[in-house]
Amino acid sequence: MTAEPRVLVVGYGTVGRAFHDLLAAGAQDLARRYGVKPRVTGIVRSRGAWLDDDGLPPGATLLAKRRTMTVEEAMEKARPDVLVEITPTNLRTGEPGLSTIRSALARGIRVVTANKGPLVVAYRELTELAAKHGVPFRFEGTVAGAIPTLNLYDHALRGNPVVRVDGILNGTSNFILTRMAEEGLEFEPALAEAQQLGYAEADPSADVDGLDAAAKLVILGNHVLGLDLRLADVRTSGIRSITSGAIRLAAANGWSLHLIASVSPEDGAEVAPRLVPRGSSLDVPGALNVVRFTTAHAGPFTVIGKGAGGKETATAVLSDVIAALVD
Amino acid sequence: MTAEPRVLVVGYGTVGRAFHDLLAAGAQDLARRYGVKPRVTGIVRSRGAWLDDDGLPPGATLLAKRRTMTVEEAMEKARPDVLVEITPTNLRTGEPGLSTIRSALARGIRVVTANKGPLVVAYRELTELAAKHGVPFRFEGTVAGAIPTLNLYDHALRGNPVVRVDGILNGTSNFILTRMAEEGLEFEPALAEAQQLGYAEADPSADVDGLDAAAKLVILGNHVLGLDLRLADVRTSGIRSITSGAIRLAAANGWSLHLIASVSPEDGAEVAPRLVPRGSSLDVPGALNVVRFTTAHAGPFTVIGKGAGGKETATAVLSDVIAALVD
Repeated sequence: MTAEPRVLVVGYGTVGRAFHDLLAAGAQDLARRYGVKPRVTGIVRSRGAWLDDDGLPPGATLLAKRRTMTVEEAMEKARPDVLVEITPTNLRTGEPGLSTIRSALARGIRVVTANKGPLVVAYRELTELAAKHGVPFRFEGTVAGAIPTLNLYDHALRGNPVVRVDGILNGTSNFILTRMAEEGLEFEPALAEAQQLGYAEADPSADVDGLDAAAKLVILGNHVLGLDLRLADVRTSGIRSITSGAIRLAAANGWSLHLIASVSPEDGAEVAPRLVPRGSSLDVPGALNVVRFTTAHAGPFTVIGKGAGGKETATAVLSDVIAALVD
Repeated sequence: MTAEPRVLVVGYGTVGRAFHDLLAAGAQDLARRYGVKPRVTGIVRSRGAWLDDDGLPPGATLLAKRRTMTVEEAMEKARPDVLVEITPTNLRTGEPGLSTIRSALARGIRVVTANKGPLVVAYRELTELAAKHGVPFRFEGTVAGAIPTLNLYDHALRGNPVVRVDGILNGTSNFILTRMAEEGLEFEPALAEAQQLGYAEADPSADVDGLDAAAKLVILGNHVLGLDLRLADVRTSGIRSITSGAIRLAAANGWSLHLIASVSPEDGAEVAPRLVPRGSSLDVPGALNVVRFTTAHAGPFTVIGKGAGGKETATAVLSDVIAALVD
C-alpha cells in the first residue's frame, strides 16, 4: 500500500464534505498513528467531476476546474485505492450507489459507503463480490451514524455469537416521541418542531413510518446474524398514530414508548412502537440511537450515541477508510 | 499461521476454565468463521503442568497426567502460538504475570491476558516490547469484562480521537450503591449482602475502596488516550463513607450516586463517588459496567454491559485470541 493512498469520493453532500474536512484536518494524526496519509484525488457529484493527482482540498468543488465525466470514467482516470460512495439513498433500487459499488468492487477497488440503499437491495451480492475479488467493503456509516456497531461485531466479539439485536435506529422518531412525552405534545406539533429544528425532513415518511429503521435493521441482521433479509421481510409500523395520552399512561406505569427495531433468527425482523422499562438501557432520550446486542455467552451489551448528522456519519466513513487501507 | 494454532494457558481459575470451555465448545464455529481451530496444548497452574500436543480437553487438570515444570519450561516444550496469561492479579508487583508476559513476548509468542497487574505496573514496557518483536499483545479482558472497550477503540474509532473517558468500572461497588438506593440499606449491610451473593470477596477492599476501578482506568487511559499513568497517578476514593441518607437526598433531587472513574489529558485520572443525572447513560444499576467515550468529532458514546464474571471475561479473552491469530 502506498503511503498516500488515493480516495475517490462519489456524492458530495453533507457527509461527503464532512468526510473531506475530517480527512484533511486529521492528515498528520492519521499518518502518525496508522502510517497512511489518504488524500482525495477525485470527487464526482451530480453537477460535475473534479480530479487532481496532487489531492483536492475541501472546497475544491467551489474553486477548482469542473469536468464532465461519468463515475466509470472517474474510476479509470483517478485510479483510486478506495472509493467512498455517499450519494443519496434509494431504498427501492439502491441506485446510483449500487452500480457504482458493483463496478468498483469488480475492478478490485476498496469501497466504503454510508449509503443504505445498495446494501438493503443487494447485501449478499455485494459482500460476496467483495470476497470474490478479495477487496475490503465496509459500511459502518449505514447503521446508527457515529456509533460503532458493525465494526464492533467484527472485531470485538469473536467466539461470542450474537443471538439477537434490539435498538432505536432512527433518531428523528425518537426525538418526536421524547418531546411528546416531555411536553404532552401530540404527534403533528412534535413533528413540526422536529422539522423546524432540522431533525426531520419536509417529507418525514422514511423516519416516522419506520422505513429508515427497517433499512438499518436489514443491514444489522444480515451482517451480525448472517441472515438474508430484504426490506420487505421487516414487519414495519411507525409512530403516526401514537397519542400523548398513550405515552402518559405508559409513563404512569413505569414505561417509556420508543420505536424499537428487533431482529433474531427465531423472531425475524420487526420495527414497531414498543414499551420499554423507564431507565433501562433501551430507554434513551432525544435524537440518540441505541443498539443492544444479546450475546450467547455474556448476556446483553448496549451501545448508545449520536445516530445521525453529517460529521458524525463522516467519522464512521473515515474509520472505515483507514481500516480498508491498513487492515 | 497453522490452521490449528497451539495455546498455552497460564493460570487456570474461573476465567481460564471458562475460556477453555468456550474454545472447546466453539471450535467448529471458529474454524468456519475465522479459518482457525485453536487448541489448548498446555496448561500451567500453581499445582502443576499439563501438556499434550494433541490438545487438552476441558477438565484435563483433573484427569490427565500432571507434571512439574516452570512456565519457562512449558513455553519451551509446548511451543505455543499464543500464550493466555490469567493468573491472579497483583496490582503492586504485577507478578507472576509480568515475568511470564515479558518472557513470552521476547520469544515472539503472541500474548493475551485478562490480568490487570502486569499492565498497571508496566504498560509502556510491555506494549513496546510487543511492538519491538512484532507480536500481538491484547488485553481486552482487563477492562470491563465482557464489554468491548479497547478493541472498540482500536478498530472502530480511527480518525475520531477520544478526548475523555468516564465510566463505572467496578460492578461490586455499583451493586452495593444500587442496593443502598433501592432498599435504604447502609453500607455495611449492603456489603454483607453482596458478599453473600458472591459479588464481593471476603476482603472487599479492592472493590469498595476504588483500587480495582483505578487499575482499569490506568489501562484505559494509557491505551485510549496515550497517557503514561501508574496506579499512584489516580486520585482514588471509595464508597465506605457513603450513607443511605446522602443517596436519598440526591435521589430526591434527580441524581444517582455512583463510583465514577474519569480520565482525560487535562484533568488526569480520578475514581470517586459522584452524582450523575438519573436516567442518564452513566446511571446504570446493579453489577453492570458502563464506559463513555467522549470523541473529538462525534460527541460521546456509551457502552453498557456485564463487567465481571468468569464466562463474561473469558469471551473477551477468546475474542483476543482469535484476533491475535488471524488479524
